Amino acid sequence: MKGSRQEADSYRRLSQADLATYLAAVPSARKRLGGESSGWSVREVGDGNLNLVFIAKGPKGGVAVKQALPFVRLVGESWPLPLSRVDYEHLALTQQAQLAPGLVPEVLHFDEAMKLIVMELLEPHIILRRGLIAGTRYPRLAEDLAVFLARTLFFTSDLALQAAEKKERIAAFAGNHALCKITEDLIFTDPYRLAEQNRWTEPYLNSIAEGFRADLDLHVAISRLKLKFLSSAEAMIHGDLHTGSVMVTPDDTRVIDPEFAFYGPMGFDVGALIANFLMNFLANEGHEKNQGEREDHGEWVLETTQEICRRFRAKFLELWRSHAKGDAYPTCLFPGALGEARLDIERQHYMDRLFQDTVGFAGAKIVRRILGLAHNIDFEWIEDKARRATCEARALRLARELLVNASSFTSIEAVIAAARVAAWWKPGFT
Amino acid sequence: MKGSRQEADSYRRLSQADLATYLAAVPSARKRLGGESSGWSVREVGDGNLNLVFIAKGPKGGVAVKQALPFVRLVGESWPLPLSRVDYEHLALTQQAQLAPGLVPEVLHFDEAMKLIVMELLEPHIILRRGLIAGTRYPRLAEDLAVFLARTLFFTSDLALQAAEKKERIAAFAGNHALCKITEDLIFTDPYRLAEQNRWTEPYLNSIAEGFRADLDLHVAISRLKLKFLSSAEAMIHGDLHTGSVMVTPDDTRVIDPEFAFYGPMGFDVGALIANFLMNFLANEGHEKNQGEREDHGEWVLETTQEICRRFRAKFLELWRSHAKGDAYPTCLFPGALGEARLDIERQHYMDRLFQDTVGFAGAKIVRRILGLAHNIDFEWIEDKARRATCEARALRLARELLVNASSFTSIEAVIAAARVAAWWKPGFT
Repeated sequence: MKGSRQEADSYRRLSQADLATYLAAVPSARKRLGGESSGWSVREVGDGNLNLVFIAKGPKGGVAVKQALPFVRLVGESWPLPLSRVDYEHLALTQQAQLAPGLVPEVLHFDEAMKLIVMELLEPHIILRRGLIAGTRYPRLAEDLAVFLARTLFFTSDLALQAAEKKERIAAFAGNHALCKITEDLIFTDPYRLAEQNRWTEPYLNSIAEGFRADLDLHVAISRLKLKFLSSAEAMIHGDLHTGSVMVTPDDTRVIDPEFAFYGPMGFDVGALIANFLMNFLANEGHEKNQGEREDHGEWVLETTQEICRRFRAKFLELWRSHAKGDAYPTCLFPGALGEARLDIERQHYMDRLFQDTVGFAGAKIVRRILGLAHNIDFEWIEDKARRATCEARALRLARELLVNASSFTSIEAVIAAARVAAWWKPGFT
Repeated sequence: MKGSRQEADSYRRLSQADLATYLAAVPSARKRLGGESSGWSVREVGDGNLNLVFIAKGPKGGVAVKQALPFVRLVGESWPLPLSRVDYEHLALTQQAQLAPGLVPEVLHFDEAMKLIVMELLEPHIILRRGLIAGTRYPRLAEDLAVFLARTLFFTSDLALQAAEKKERIAAFAGNHALCKITEDLIFTDPYRLAEQNRWTEPYLNSIAEGFRADLDLHVAISRLKLKFLSSAEAMIHGDLHTGSVMVTPDDTRVIDPEFAFYGPMGFDVGALIANFLMNFLANEGHEKNQGEREDHGEWVLETTQEICRRFRAKFLELWRSHAKGDAYPTCLFPGALGEARLDIERQHYMDRLFQDTVGFAGAKIVRRILGLAHNIDFEWIEDKARRATCEARALRLARELLVNASSFTSIEAVIAAARVAAWWKPGFT
């Protein structure tokens, strides 16, 4: 999509040493930092799997700088990845900022040649996953995430967009296929076969992992979801919406890192969030020093999961009723009070179908975090391997149910009930 | 997509008078025609709804020339339409020629600036719709159409393509949205509301048309299909695959006019064909001079409809079993004889889901031809309006059933049985 010549000419990897010089030439960053560049502190935080991330602080404030590397940072130069992913992240961030104001970091500067984005520094925000593991409650969280989901998905769907504009937007993200391919492989394929990059808590989960690799009903279920991921251009999705892609304070919620964005199935984003909350819930017991001490926190996590789904549904429906300017379900076919009433039945069915997708994708997102390449600190930080494996086995049991029997879960309440049952299970290896 | 400057600079509308001069400068056309341009005969046949179509004949052979006009020919300059549609037609024709050799016209020359395609002249081919109305049988037809459908759809789907390539192909057709918009309006919206361009056989069908405009269950069904048309990028579809887009002799079948091509739902193409055969069947009685004289022809049309569906299914499955190189349903997840057997159950389910879509889209294609802008000569050529309306009313009755109760039709045999029942119906107005 972008000229490789230009990339070769202008791209150079920034070091901690030259970041201040770079930022001094960016007016919006200079203003945000204040003072002279000699007085700015810079550090590479590098907690991303893919990119360089720097934080710069000055007398007035701070900025975060994200620069793409031509490979996957987590793995190294052996796994090349196009720099253009920053272009898509910038495009998504810009659109999300318009659609869900205040829920994404502000972009101060985008350097297409250098493949970097300078953003406001989110402070004192922490990664939501860490907050949840610490047992912190976030009273705004469910509302903010429901708003983010409802607004970014609704307004980029055929319910809100004219077809011509939507087709152009789909095309604008089509070049981001290398990032989609990561998802296609690591989520929808590798955990279900012998793949070099897979790992799991050995030896405890060996037989479950083997079982998943032989479970053909599960393979059909994950393949149906993969096909949906490949062919359903429902809306602009974040594409990697786990609890590590959300930064929080008790008063503020920001969704970050949309470099996996493209036009895909809405349920993938909603399912990703649900899955990560359910994993936090099922990891909860593993972090207890005294039995039962985190039960209240677990309840709050489940309530939040439920609230995200309920509010997402309500807000999405509200937007559909008030902002249906898209080409799908044209209002001219549903005139008057009767038409509106009939359409509203269909809106409920639409949300039910979206929830079915959500359930399946949630299952897929759990499995990949336990049997695939990328794991969650929710589980990883449980030091005792047998305890960790117990929590993980419960999550896998739930995930298989969500994947294979998705259609039997018609509400988030049913999913949460299944998560509670899974939490009681004592796997044979303990 | 294409520079408007270039279009403005180079595009000029060809006249019958200057076509020979134009073709004389095209080596492939000159060779095909033979002799000197002064000896070529040229006529504008113009039976298309959208474009100029010329036929040139020389001592050695003939060519057909299709040139886009910047508006819809059927309606006039008041309905502008981008010239770029020829680019998409050329792209689709080129790909179809590779995927289904011998089943599309050979392209001799493409002039992007002039927005025209020079093709082999299909002779003595006639438009299939005319052949069917004349009561001609085409022994190769079902096989050829099934092959065309199976190969063009399978090989452009996620079952055959890598995701990156498919996303690029989707993007390559994204600019064809003006043609998609015609379908979105004329098929999925207008026939179900008061729209200026609608027409139907008055006064006989007035109350049915009014009923369809008030039928909210029908509006939900058509809206679900519209959403699928807008958001399901399953494969490169022809996009206008009616019996007027097929040219035939008893020994040869060619699919023409893919200017509506884009990446959409496969069922739209299969449904379009089925719908047009079913309409021919239901129009059949209206062409009889003596009662029952066309019954045998009607039976042949139904058999052909059935054969197209059966063979399409068999061929698509055969391709899937032998050429599954795409990213969907990766073979690595279905190893060994057991894996293959389990995947084959899913393949059948996949074809069943595709058939559900097909049934709905078939219903949609029938309604648009009777209550919308563009009508079929299958019905139009029945001069007696009451007789014509009787045939059309039967088709509408079948179509509503296919749209609203699509899921109850699990086989083409069930659809054909419903068509037979519809053919017995005596609408109240006769």
